[in-house]
Amino acid sequence: MTQETTAALVVIGNEILSGKIADGNSHFLAQQLRGAGVTLARIVVVPDEIEVIAEAVRTLAPRVDVLFTSGGVGPTHDDVTIAGVAQGLGRGVIRHPALEKMLRDYFGDRLNASHLKLADTVEGTELDYAGNVSFPTFRVENIYILPGIPEIFREKVLALRDRFAGDPFHLRVVYTRELESAIAAFLDETLARFPALLLGSYPKLNDPEYRVRITLESKDRGYVERALAALLAMLPPEAVVRTE
Amino acid sequence: MTQETTAALVVIGNEILSGKIADGNSHFLAQQLRGAGVTLARIVVVPDEIEVIAEAVRTLAPRVDVLFTSGGVGPTHDDVTIAGVAQGLGRGVIRHPALEKMLRDYFGDRLNASHLKLADTVEGTELDYAGNVSFPTFRVENIYILPGIPEIFREKVLALRDRFAGDPFHLRVVYTRELESAIAAFLDETLARFPALLLGSYPKLNDPEYRVRITLESKDRGYVERALAALLAMLPPEAVVRTE
Repeated sequence: MTQETTAALVVIGNEILSGKIADGNSHFLAQQLRGAGVTLARIVVVPDEIEVIAEAVRTLAPRVDVLFTSGGVGPTHDDVTIAGVAQGLGRGVIRHPALEKMLRDYFGDRLNASHLKLADTVEGTELDYAGNVSFPTFRVENIYILPGIPEIFREKVLALRDRFAGDPFHLRVVYTRELESAIAAFLDETLARFPALLLGSYPKLNDPEYRVRITLESKDRGYVERALAALLAMLPPEAVVRTE
Repeated sequence: MTQETTAALVVIGNEILSGKIADGNSHFLAQQLRGAGVTLARIVVVPDEIEVIAEAVRTLAPRVDVLFTSGGVGPTHDDVTIAGVAQGLGRGVIRHPALEKMLRDYFGDRLNASHLKLADTVEGTELDYAGNVSFPTFRVENIYILPGIPEIFREKVLALRDRFAGDPFHLRVVYTRELESAIAAFLDETLARFPALLLGSYPKLNDPEYRVRITLESKDRGYVERALAALLAMLPPEAVVRTE
């Protein structure tokens, strides 16, 4: 019996939907979660709008073990993630006393209303200092609210990742010269014999080395190896460029 | 009165959720739509599962003018986008006679069941030959079903883009040395005076040139220029690195 943890990610950002910035946080989180044996079930990119964020939270949070958000947590008008998560959970937004004190100590006389916005949290938020970060991560229910700035997002993901770690996925890869349509029947047969296998087939155009990359995965290493052996026994030997 | 067209994108792919492949199609589509004056309202990445794709279609298609899908349209077992869109629309999957003929003519004696899967379409699909593509694009209701292979996805987006083109967005950018918290009040004041402005504020870490990139957008060029002038009049002159 393997341990199964599921996650989802809500990316908040007009800058991504309008094509100004390419979202790299999704791919980073996907890789890190996979490495930790966590199944990322959904990524949703939404605009800086409270009700849209709230709807994403209402839809996704009950369906996964962990929901991450990326972006929209700074001091400016377009930072509405806290308000969106609060509305999604039916909770209020409160100024967190410990954060307010930290900000007052840090900024002193220069403190303004925008600084104080950084102390606004969803009611019931726990402050998480994992990874020795200078500013804590906000967690409320099963939701981790992460900043969108890539350097900080990555730092926090790396600090949090291991607490979700479960049994890892085992991955084997076959590179083949054949077209997908020529090997589809072999893939179907492999799945018929190994129905729990995670089997992917990814064509590549204009690559001199191979045409299709086949991925075989499971949390059961022996199962993957047996499925790989079965597939290789069906494929014409000259079709296989290499395996990984 | 400006013309407003909205779009959404459903990306189908376990390979993206599992971190094996970075999704570049989303950013490409976001940029192309923005250039055409189209507002991209949502991006959703879902696994290769018929019911999840169907749910995304049911949720998004009625809310936008155009829904794009990327991926899951090849000949193998994990290509379930057609079945997912069909289920989302409450329609059947049928083998399209014109496509079947094209495939039979092309493959001749080599034709197999996997080839024929490429002729499966959602009932009521129109074949779209825009852009002189070798294989037509599938359109059903307001949904364009695009392949996930980046080269083909891009080719089809470029061929389709102009049919959605509306009034363009006008963009001005201000690069500033100040921290977000120091300029947030000026941004609030700008929005109070120009409530229809699309105003973004994007901090950058460790950049020797600037700390925050402020974007001002509208489909009304004069409105953007007046808002920019108002913002620049408020910002301390030494705070502004440059404008674009």
